Amino acid sequence: MKKKNKKVNAAILIIGNEILSGRTQDKNVAFISNWLNSKCGILVEEVRIIQDVEKKIVNNVLLLSKKFNYVFTTGGIGPTHDDITAKSISKAFKVKYEFHKEAYKILEKYYGKSNFNDGRKKMAKMPKGSKLIYNPSSAAPGFLTKNILSLPGVPSILKSMIENCKRYLMKGVKVHSKTLNLYTVESNISKNLENIQNKYKKDIEIGSYPFFRLGKIGVSVVSRSNNINKLKEASKDLKILAKNKKIKIFKL
Amino acid sequence: MKKKNKKVNAAILIIGNEILSGRTQDKNVAFISNWLNSKCGILVEEVRIIQDVEKKIVNNVLLLSKKFNYVFTTGGIGPTHDDITAKSISKAFKVKYEFHKEAYKILEKYYGKSNFNDGRKKMAKMPKGSKLIYNPSSAAPGFLTKNILSLPGVPSILKSMIENCKRYLMKGVKVHSKTLNLYTVESNISKNLENIQNKYKKDIEIGSYPFFRLGKIGVSVVSRSNNINKLKEASKDLKILAKNKKIKIFKL
Repeated sequence: MKKKNKKVNAAILIIGNEILSGRTQDKNVAFISNWLNSKCGILVEEVRIIQDVEKKIVNNVLLLSKKFNYVFTTGGIGPTHDDITAKSISKAFKVKYEFHKEAYKILEKYYGKSNFNDGRKKMAKMPKGSKLIYNPSSAAPGFLTKNILSLPGVPSILKSMIENCKRYLMKGVKVHSKTLNLYTVESNISKNLENIQNKYKKDIEIGSYPFFRLGKIGVSVVSRSNNINKLKEASKDLKILAKNKKIKIFKL
Repeated sequence: MKKKNKKVNAAILIIGNEILSGRTQDKNVAFISNWLNSKCGILVEEVRIIQDVEKKIVNNVLLLSKKFNYVFTTGGIGPTHDDITAKSISKAFKVKYEFHKEAYKILEKYYGKSNFNDGRKKMAKMPKGSKLIYNPSSAAPGFLTKNILSLPGVPSILKSMIENCKRYLMKGVKVHSKTLNLYTVESNISKNLENIQNKYKKDIEIGSYPFFRLGKIGVSVVSRSNNINKLKEASKDLKILAKNKKIKIFKL
């Protein structure tokens, strides 16, 4: 991973009718976002979930590729007719959709020559010039095309591959976060939170999120910044606010 | 709900840094999609998750509003400084951001006059001309502006309000689905699935999704169509395929 001391961002493009229809609960967004931020200092700034339709994949890949440093696609790289991610990305960048020699060898070895049927061979077809993202759990590799990293949709397989994305990513500035869980309701502290947010508006982004725990209502106040000292200062202010308002703090 | 016998579609716009950062696992997409399809015959065709940034909300609201029959937004309608959905939608449609009289009354009654502070009052501010989506669990209403339905981000509250969206939606054609769970791997049936998909390409959309259950690998073959007879036909073909290939079917 190359070092770079600036903001690096990414988008996630989820390709899959099964997520859109509500049949399958997506779990990849939370996993990829957490991994990118904690391991690479990369911030996910947009997610899109789209249908398995070539034109939609082409348009979104091109647009997100321009807007963000990296785009992670999930889904649509398997052996069946509805797996059209590789073909669509080839079309987006106007490059050939062809067998990747190394991917072909990996898959041929994994399945054995006599079981290497057309569906399995399809998983070796990629946009010309793609680099492989190795897959330690089920062989079929993901691939990097320009700044697009294409991963499978099955969460367990995606997880097994994510570390192999690292070599292709430049490192950004890590965003630190501090969470204060308060036993109160948002509307009791909204004015004070706004004041604290304004005090640190250059350095910190403060979000407030209601939670429910054991029948009690609370608010998680999450502060995020790449400046850890400012984060500590704001954290003190938030604790003073809780004390002044006699709000109990709940520690996880 | 008005009746209409044609395709009606929707998009979901999730407004929330906490989902993008991976801190919170989104559950609203699956819930809204399932509800819209099963109760209203409306198909969710795109989802976007974006940051709590006014300009991004404005741009996405305008774009999705044009592309889809309805847009559901989730998040950003609470009492704190990072809740900017209502203000941003006002800006998008160039209408005033002002107190909605009925919403104001509902909230004043809920909190009591003496506890009705500025943060709570903020939840009664909406784009001028909005219609209310009543909230039976925590009072603060959602709202309809043009074809945008704005709901809160907290899943339990959103769920309690969803039925109150119905009056604003026209009914589309219900998409039926049939799932066949096969104990096989995708690449073993990809060619056959493609043939069946081609046979029904006008009427049915067939997707295939790997699953893991009790240490066994399987494939869920999901067929979707608004033509229930064609769906039954395709289902027979899929069962014949399983029989010919000696694949065990797993019934849920």
